[in-house]
Amino acid sequence: MNKHGGYYGEEKSKVIDFSVNINPLGISKKVSKSLKNNIENIVRYPEIDGDSAKEDIANSLQFSKQNIILGNGAIELIYLFSRALKPKKTLIIQPTFNEYERAFKIVKSNIIYYNTSEKKDFEINIKDLLSKIDNNRPDVVVFCNPNNPTGNFLNSKELKPILDKIKSIDSYLFLDESFIHFTNRLSFIDYVEKYPIFIIRSMTKFYAVPGIRLGYGVGNKNIINKLNNHKEPWAINSLALSIVPEILNDRDYVQKTMSWYNSEKEYMKEELAKIDGIKVYESFTNFFLCKLKDMTSFNLKDRLLKKHNIYIRTCEDFCGLDNLFFRISIRTHVQNKHLIHSLKKALR
Amino acid sequence: MNKHGGYYGEEKSKVIDFSVNINPLGISKKVSKSLKNNIENIVRYPEIDGDSAKEDIANSLQFSKQNIILGNGAIELIYLFSRALKPKKTLIIQPTFNEYERAFKIVKSNIIYYNTSEKKDFEINIKDLLSKIDNNRPDVVVFCNPNNPTGNFLNSKELKPILDKIKSIDSYLFLDESFIHFTNRLSFIDYVEKYPIFIIRSMTKFYAVPGIRLGYGVGNKNIINKLNNHKEPWAINSLALSIVPEILNDRDYVQKTMSWYNSEKEYMKEELAKIDGIKVYESFTNFFLCKLKDMTSFNLKDRLLKKHNIYIRTCEDFCGLDNLFFRISIRTHVQNKHLIHSLKKALR
Repeated sequence: MNKHGGYYGEEKSKVIDFSVNINPLGISKKVSKSLKNNIENIVRYPEIDGDSAKEDIANSLQFSKQNIILGNGAIELIYLFSRALKPKKTLIIQPTFNEYERAFKIVKSNIIYYNTSEKKDFEINIKDLLSKIDNNRPDVVVFCNPNNPTGNFLNSKELKPILDKIKSIDSYLFLDESFIHFTNRLSFIDYVEKYPIFIIRSMTKFYAVPGIRLGYGVGNKNIINKLNNHKEPWAINSLALSIVPEILNDRDYVQKTMSWYNSEKEYMKEELAKIDGIKVYESFTNFFLCKLKDMTSFNLKDRLLKKHNIYIRTCEDFCGLDNLFFRISIRTHVQNKHLIHSLKKALR
Repeated sequence: MNKHGGYYGEEKSKVIDFSVNINPLGISKKVSKSLKNNIENIVRYPEIDGDSAKEDIANSLQFSKQNIILGNGAIELIYLFSRALKPKKTLIIQPTFNEYERAFKIVKSNIIYYNTSEKKDFEINIKDLLSKIDNNRPDVVVFCNPNNPTGNFLNSKELKPILDKIKSIDSYLFLDESFIHFTNRLSFIDYVEKYPIFIIRSMTKFYAVPGIRLGYGVGNKNIINKLNNHKEPWAINSLALSIVPEILNDRDYVQKTMSWYNSEKEYMKEELAKIDGIKVYESFTNFFLCKLKDMTSFNLKDRLLKKHNIYIRTCEDFCGLDNLFFRISIRTHVQNKHLIHSLKKALR
């Protein structure tokens, strides 16, 4: 049984999984066709470093291949980065995805938190963060933008002084942009040549193929070289590599997805706001963090699963959150309507 | 372009690749069907640690799930083991697969070699090895059985004193059994409870699906726990996990493979022995190490590729071998005949 990564319990096919932040439109026809056509290719080893896919990604971003590294899911790159840099001190902006802390703890990094405040809706106070960095001089600063699970986003005006500070103390920024595709805000990818910044991205959440494992990282040639020195060979399977060109050129699917996202995001935002008994946090991506007023998230999860076949992500394991918080992703209109309806019933 | 892992040059489909040690019978129908049926499942995350697959493998080996760890290819487990144990000193029996040395060097292990001798056909001299272990007290001893690229095999009578020695000095044996399926000799899997031994195995060479990335490791609960503490989540893709039950039950394919293997192994052994200009080493698995007498392996490789569409593995990068050595795998009868014929021509 999985701890997280979606619902793996009984009657899997009946349960609507709001716990994973995956595009609910399903696999694009192009990707699905390409996978079927490429099955016979698994009789060969994949390219050792996925060079062709790196080149395609680099071209699409107007970077060079030397700026790109592939991951067996973006998550591999968290662990690879921590191993390659072995920072003595790591500052993590909390609450956020738990794997950062695990990855840096494994290499015995001293972990410091910058805790955003619930009272301030988990927004980063730039001044506070700058002085935290100044006082602690971390070797690496980690954050996720848009952030999982809060949905917050730091724009470039806010990030600029942090980057300047990080550069001035010879530190490094590890930035997870796994949910950037769902926001209309700018990525920080253009900063990687001027600043010490390494960015990771998932290729499978937006394209609804998390099972295939595919992510990438972007950085200057120095950091990519360092990571390559620690990178394991043949880590990305052939089928994942085979869909890269499809994914990069599937404009139809992107359009369909953004049109779904824009209308359902608005719908969910409005409808969730109307529900008594929960506070909904502003989100810049395809999920919402919510806080319950009179019930624990465990209770809500049980009720929704038993009575409504709905599965949500309780957030007690995120640093700074407790058993009143839960996270829900945006799904199809019918499913979202069912969730809103069920939430109202469950909270009655 | 790959350094190794098969031919990735021009006119890929025309070239017969004798450089990779993959079952040439191709994907089993059952596996291929299962993959096609499971494509739509990649809309979900794989199980975080591949628990169901671990259970299936454990049952097939009559072990418990706590004795098994999965790898994104067996190769992930080499790197995972080196990271989890961080041995100060590692003894590698050479010549062998290069990734062991890279993995242990990355964790700054002091690497010592036990070099088998060309004059003795690269066989391990147990007495010498025991005294090497005694004198150096390595924290980990690494070897591959059957060994890549020599094809040598150490049987249990020979291994027993080494295991006793390793246990007595509180060291660990890392044993790669990636090619054990092709030999009729006994695995050392039954030793994992009594001795400090961790065994890795590939699941994809025998089943001709190296592109999917799937391997596993077997050890006592202690070592598996240690490895799990360093293991990255969601590292095995859904499609790889989905074929585990098929692979474990595909008796037809195993029978077909062993019948092909037994006759072609014999054929190749006899025919290669007849060729002037090369020495062929005895092999316990599906490939042969050969040494050229009057030509470099680079020259031979070029001739075979240009004139006969055949690709071989030159072995200059293996510790203790030079540019006179090459390795060829056993393929289908027609292909093997073509190789023998072409070798004769190229060496004339």
